[in-house]
Amino acid sequence: MMKPSAAYVDKLVRAALDEDAPWGDLSAQTFLPSSARVRAQLVAREDGVLAGEDLFTASMRLTGDITVRFELHDGQRFSRGTLLATAEGPARDVLTGERVGLNFIQRLSGIATLTASYVAAAAGSATRITDTRKTTPGLRQLERYAVRCGGGHNHRFSLSDAVMLKDNHLAVLTQNGARALPESLREAAQSLPHTTHIEVEVDRLDQIPSVLSSGVVNTLMLDNFSLDAMHEGVALVRKLAPGVLIEASGGITLERIAAIAATGVDLISVGALTHSVRALDLGLDIQS
Amino acid sequence: MMKPSAAYVDKLVRAALDEDAPWGDLSAQTFLPSSARVRAQLVAREDGVLAGEDLFTASMRLTGDITVRFELHDGQRFSRGTLLATAEGPARDVLTGERVGLNFIQRLSGIATLTASYVAAAAGSATRITDTRKTTPGLRQLERYAVRCGGGHNHRFSLSDAVMLKDNHLAVLTQNGARALPESLREAAQSLPHTTHIEVEVDRLDQIPSVLSSGVVNTLMLDNFSLDAMHEGVALVRKLAPGVLIEASGGITLERIAAIAATGVDLISVGALTHSVRALDLGLDIQS
Amino acid sequence: MMKPSAAYVDKLVRAALDEDAPWGDLSAQTFLPSSARVRAQLVAREDGVLAGEDLFTASMRLTGDITVRFELHDGQRFSRGTLLATAEGPARDVLTGERVGLNFIQRLSGIATLTASYVAAAAGSATRITDTRKTTPGLRQLERYAVRCGGGHNHRFSLSDAVMLKDNHLAVLTQNGARALPESLREAAQSLPHTTHIEVEVDRLDQIPSVLSSGVVNTLMLDNFSLDAMHEGVALVRKLAPGVLIEASGGITLERIAAIAATGVDLISVGALTHSVRALDLGLDIQS
Amino acid sequence: MMKPSAAYVDKLVRAALDEDAPWGDLSAQTFLPSSARVRAQLVAREDGVLAGEDLFTASMRLTGDITVRFELHDGQRFSRGTLLATAEGPARDVLTGERVGLNFIQRLSGIATLTASYVAAAAGSATRITDTRKTTPGLRQLERYAVRCGGGHNHRFSLSDAVMLKDNHLAVLTQNGARALPESLREAAQSLPHTTHIEVEVDRLDQIPSVLSSGVVNTLMLDNFSLDAMHEGVALVRKLAPGVLIEASGGITLERIAAIAATGVDLISVGALTHSVRALDLGLDIQS
Amino acid sequence: MMKPSAAYVDKLVRAALDEDAPWGDLSAQTFLPSSARVRAQLVAREDGVLAGEDLFTASMRLTGDITVRFELHDGQRFSRGTLLATAEGPARDVLTGERVGLNFIQRLSGIATLTASYVAAAAGSATRITDTRKTTPGLRQLERYAVRCGGGHNHRFSLSDAVMLKDNHLAVLTQNGARALPESLREAAQSLPHTTHIEVEVDRLDQIPSVLSSGVVNTLMLDNFSLDAMHEGVALVRKLAPGVLIEASGGITLERIAAIAATGVDLISVGALTHSVRALDLGLDIQS
Amino acid sequence: MMKPSAAYVDKLVRAALDEDAPWGDLSAQTFLPSSARVRAQLVAREDGVLAGEDLFTASMRLTGDITVRFELHDGQRFSRGTLLATAEGPARDVLTGERVGLNFIQRLSGIATLTASYVAAAAGSATRITDTRKTTPGLRQLERYAVRCGGGHNHRFSLSDAVMLKDNHLAVLTQNGARALPESLREAAQSLPHTTHIEVEVDRLDQIPSVLSSGVVNTLMLDNFSLDAMHEGVALVRKLAPGVLIEASGGITLERIAAIAATGVDLISVGALTHSVRALDLGLDIQS
Repeated sequence: MMKPSAAYVDKLVRAALDEDAPWGDLSAQTFLPSSARVRAQLVAREDGVLAGEDLFTASMRLTGDITVRFELHDGQRFSRGTLLATAEGPARDVLTGERVGLNFIQRLSGIATLTASYVAAAAGSATRITDTRKTTPGLRQLERYAVRCGGGHNHRFSLSDAVMLKDNHLAVLTQNGARALPESLREAAQSLPHTTHIEVEVDRLDQIPSVLSSGVVNTLMLDNFSLDAMHEGVALVRKLAPGVLIEASGGITLERIAAIAATGVDLISVGALTHSVRALDLGLDIQS
Repeated sequence: MMKPSAAYVDKLVRAALDEDAPWGDLSAQTFLPSSARVRAQLVAREDGVLAGEDLFTASMRLTGDITVRFELHDGQRFSRGTLLATAEGPARDVLTGERVGLNFIQRLSGIATLTASYVAAAAGSATRITDTRKTTPGLRQLERYAVRCGGGHNHRFSLSDAVMLKDNHLAVLTQNGARALPESLREAAQSLPHTTHIEVEVDRLDQIPSVLSSGVVNTLMLDNFSLDAMHEGVALVRKLAPGVLIEASGGITLERIAAIAATGVDLISVGALTHSVRALDLGLDIQS
Repeated sequence: MMKPSAAYVDKLVRAALDEDAPWGDLSAQTFLPSSARVRAQLVAREDGVLAGEDLFTASMRLTGDITVRFELHDGQRFSRGTLLATAEGPARDVLTGERVGLNFIQRLSGIATLTASYVAAAAGSATRITDTRKTTPGLRQLERYAVRCGGGHNHRFSLSDAVMLKDNHLAVLTQNGARALPESLREAAQSLPHTTHIEVEVDRLDQIPSVLSSGVVNTLMLDNFSLDAMHEGVALVRKLAPGVLIEASGGITLERIAAIAATGVDLISVGALTHSVRALDLGLDIQS
Repeated sequence: MMKPSAAYVDKLVRAALDEDAPWGDLSAQTFLPSSARVRAQLVAREDGVLAGEDLFTASMRLTGDITVRFELHDGQRFSRGTLLATAEGPARDVLTGERVGLNFIQRLSGIATLTASYVAAAAGSATRITDTRKTTPGLRQLERYAVRCGGGHNHRFSLSDAVMLKDNHLAVLTQNGARALPESLREAAQSLPHTTHIEVEVDRLDQIPSVLSSGVVNTLMLDNFSLDAMHEGVALVRKLAPGVLIEASGGITLERIAAIAATGVDLISVGALTHSVRALDLGLDIQS
Repeated sequence: MMKPSAAYVDKLVRAALDEDAPWGDLSAQTFLPSSARVRAQLVAREDGVLAGEDLFTASMRLTGDITVRFELHDGQRFSRGTLLATAEGPARDVLTGERVGLNFIQRLSGIATLTASYVAAAAGSATRITDTRKTTPGLRQLERYAVRCGGGHNHRFSLSDAVMLKDNHLAVLTQNGARALPESLREAAQSLPHTTHIEVEVDRLDQIPSVLSSGVVNTLMLDNFSLDAMHEGVALVRKLAPGVLIEASGGITLERIAAIAATGVDLISVGALTHSVRALDLGLDIQS
Repeated sequence: MMKPSAAYVDKLVRAALDEDAPWGDLSAQTFLPSSARVRAQLVAREDGVLAGEDLFTASMRLTGDITVRFELHDGQRFSRGTLLATAEGPARDVLTGERVGLNFIQRLSGIATLTASYVAAAAGSATRITDTRKTTPGLRQLERYAVRCGGGHNHRFSLSDAVMLKDNHLAVLTQNGARALPESLREAAQSLPHTTHIEVEVDRLDQIPSVLSSGVVNTLMLDNFSLDAMHEGVALVRKLAPGVLIEASGGITLERIAAIAATGVDLISVGALTHSVRALDLGLDIQS
């Protein structure tokens, strides 16, 4: 599994440490003796899936001469009460780096855990659960990594690495273009790199034949389809264009995943994986 | 109300736009005519409190020559269906900037809306709802601003601008210090800037007299106290040190706010305001 | 055609101006009167294709209050002696910004002009001329834009937005893997985003059936094939996997383009478009 | 010989790696086993002069735990087939860093090799071959270092560290100044730091006496002089101002170097050393 | 004592080294043999208090493979002739890093030494000597650290971490506000974080009762008071608001410190500690 | 006179504003009404020479919509009580930007004023007063500009743009080199760019003939010479090498300037111009 690069992790953690202690930690540096050392345990206060060990480790290491050892690794499940990691070093540094380390690993593990629940709901089907571009500004690489830790798949990373034509694009095309959509798609596709994947969103069944007739679509997204319409749509696409992938999107909830997967779509994209995250409850306990 | 500086907003939005389109928007720039213009409406898909208008506006303006006009302003409530803002400009640019603009304003409005619900629960009391340092790495200023938009108050910004001694600090002090806690506090306080606010966390009622006897504590935090213990603690502090503020923390839920406020604490700090945020459902509709 | 963003252009030009005048232009600021104004003409000293007008304009505008007007635009052909643009403003600023502006536009127009000659050699065929990752470190977006200005197409932008398995990857797989290549490809492809294009390089005809049998390859690259082998390879791919694209690579020269295109390959990737560039001869003449 | 600082090398290589793999290497990280290790050889595919070993090494080391050992060092000549260096480490990392490392060392060795050919053409004379400010934006330090590796000399680094008055400056002075040129030069020179070298370009022989009469010129540049005029110019300068250096510039080709050097000029500045570079053919071969 | 973070020191030193040798040290790298090593001694040429050892050490270490050992540490006094530190390493690197290292440590030791003289003048009293925001742009953390090294205390760090209402604020309030000052203060204080210290400046005795009656003031600053007025002011504040701190400011000179401290003020803020600094005379001697 | 570039000024001012108000100005934004506007006057509280108008203006403009008009300009003298500039705009913004603006302009005017006193002391001679590299880390360009505003001249900017061999370099050469100094100098000079000025420091008269015999020295620095020795040294240099400049350095005080200038040296370099600066007393008064 592809991990965020050390350089990216380093940059994010440095910025976070600087944000949290722009000119030092008044509490730790004033009240704690410089010679005091601690051993601290990162413990799960609820069940979950781990994501973010490198972030936690970097938060500690970039604060001071702290040794961190993880007992579990990213992608592994754990239950409440599990010892996840141990950090040892100068007490001042461990307490200074604690909050930043927790802020990262709690959020990422929250994403991984949420993702895992969606993936579990689709278990038994061949349907992928994917993320979206509804990520926290500046943290997309981390959040997508957390989705992978939870067993999910990634969608395109950005506007630069794949085409997705959504309702708003089609609305503009309709308002401005004289020619038919299939022809517009074909012509535009001529100028794209040959490596570019093209996905088009449809809101209604009757849009499907026209879009597919362009011959340049790799994935068709069924947006906000009812289950019935989705069944019908899948059948239509499989008949008209067997190689085209089908993505379900819009109004996705955990409860609906199994039923949507049962329609035979290839992908279900879930904005909630990253746009509405509850930090997982993990705590750092000083050993006495 | 203090707003994030234009320079900070500019920096965050530029980074987010770069993350979302590192080498351009293949969809908009390839499929849409450069001459097409759109008028788009930012519409509320659920009730809420607005926060992040400057971020949305900057996301549009830094993408292209787009005019944005907000009908409501940060801190104002709205109901589902309300028109929040209108953006007009080149279709390519509006569609390129859309997701970044939404990612910011949906998250911040989510925080403001959640905060407002906690503030409402404490209505009628003199108790403040405050945020914590459990913020998204890199976005603390924005998230604290959103808390203010929702009617909440801010706690210290960072480790550098106030002292807070928590259980982990006291554990280290206990393990390392020979002298009594009150004396340690007094001595350390001698080296702090005179502008530094000192807050100390206690877990049990019996810790209160000793901590207050130091004479240097400005705020006492009652961590994970039951309601009964909290009542008792408030009475004790008011008797021993009338000028000291009292903060309730730990295990705070929306349901418990009213009862906690009724104990007479001055502050309730709520990690959930920022560590577990659901993006508010706002959408951008192209006008036909 | 997708242009480099204004923010990217701005950043590169600022860095270049800072590199070329870290603490001011001793010549212009010491010897020229501050009140002197000039009109300068950007003139072609040889035939070519224009690329880089935004860079030249930014070099001037970020140096001083200079107005630049281009007579031709990126992608257009011109012959020796053609007036390309006029710049007017304070003499000090025009002369300070001159070299940086020329360094950018001469290099990019050099790339566009070279690309156009390769594209012309493939005229009449459906074969695309594409660039590679052999670009100047830090300038990839600009250089790929210049390739587009010359009528060429872009290949994948980076290691992050498409898969390309080259001889070195296959050598590692062979040395380390127990299983057959097709199975390895299929399994690995399971974890890639569904938007990821997969390209595999082969050096010999006999590798083709095995690679194609994986069923996950979108483009097959024929590396350093003789013309005869290429003819044979194209026929083989068309028979085995009609939807797979074919790329010719390695030992490509301008003289061989027509013959290679005649084999029916879809793409010819040309490292020389960006790794061996002659700056086009453009000059800035002060009007007297 | 002065080398680019480690900090500068580090910054450029990090930016290049980030450009080439903004969110990871899909090919290496997905298809290659994390445990696979390789030994790779950097081999010359043509004759040349080495430049850029630190850049290649940094490209590898900043990608992963890779050991690089160079057999030759910057400034040394090699012939086709020579083993230049060996890199050993995790297969994923070596393949991820390969292209960036090659992009740097191929370009710089291309410059060094080209420079060496000009220097060889002037062998036997006391004439220096120098570079110009026609460098790739952002890479000037590297390219000037490569010129030194090839036996060339550097000209001024930027507009800030020496004065050079060119035709455009003189045109402005003429249009705006009432006083004679020698007096203008003398007066302006009064405000320059005493460490500033002053060079003035002339296009015609008849300009020489006036320029030299200012008494403040350290180097006189003969721009686009014919060989005959250059001979005459050298004689004139030697007579009028024996301590003044003479630089030949404009229309310099490899073929003309020997003849120009024979005129006795001190310096020949060659834009082509950096503005028109062919990357040297070096390859990285995985050892089986 | 809280030290500037290693990350902050690293950033400042790198920027300073880059400023002082943007493309290398022509003298050291051209004239000195690369194999030459030196041992250099940092020696005090006058009495003082040390501040800046980490900066000096970083200046050396970030330049080359240099070992630095300090004999004294920040905050310690020394007399003329004292050996402060020894640096050993490549001669080129030691001489390249020398000036930057000295520029930092001479300035910071100058601040510490000056501060110590003010602190000594207040010896025997309970009055703190504090710094102000009159620091060198970009170096505030360092300069405040140097003040601590000299035995002084810090005032608020920035406009973000404490309130100080000065004459200009009160003038604006008076010009714009209809309501009385105490009420304005009380109302505004409602929106501040509870950790915010509030300080108000008064110019005249008669302002004191009104300001204190607001009940929200933590520190009262007596600006430009005569000694007599200061005595009177102290008495008045102690009577009206015993818990409020008193700061003397304006027209502070070393000669007046003892007398001002004798009035019983809690704090004397001294702009001169940082706005008018004489670099302490420290020298680096090469050992022969 | 060459001014710091707008980009450099902008960058320094933004960093300073961020340092002084990392997350807003609590005082101004909380206590002052957003509608309040002020007119403020920048007034001289002592005599001096102005330097830094662009910095003051940028400090205001980058804080808010503030108009600044200067009555005098950089380099002009003023007496106590002079109105230097007027700033008008929102009260909050003017008070937020005040301290940063003053910190810059007070320091730079302090340098200009001090420089002017040294220049005045050398009046009537042809001797230049120059600065040194003993500048505040990060602010060298500004401080050298302030020296120019005071009528002084600049020395080399950095280690990269001129050679200066000091006692430490010569000590290393002596310890390591077998050959005579003149030969070492000549040989090393061969590899320097022809635009590089070479300065060598001597401590004793008897070093002069050997150094000058190298024939490559442009400036000779007499370090810590007595007045008598300086007279003798000047005579010796003028006789041996009439074109070589002579710089006096070391132990320079304002009182000795006239006598040193009278020896006929070309340059006196004064570290105190920048290493020991008293901020000039300038104040910002709100108009009522």
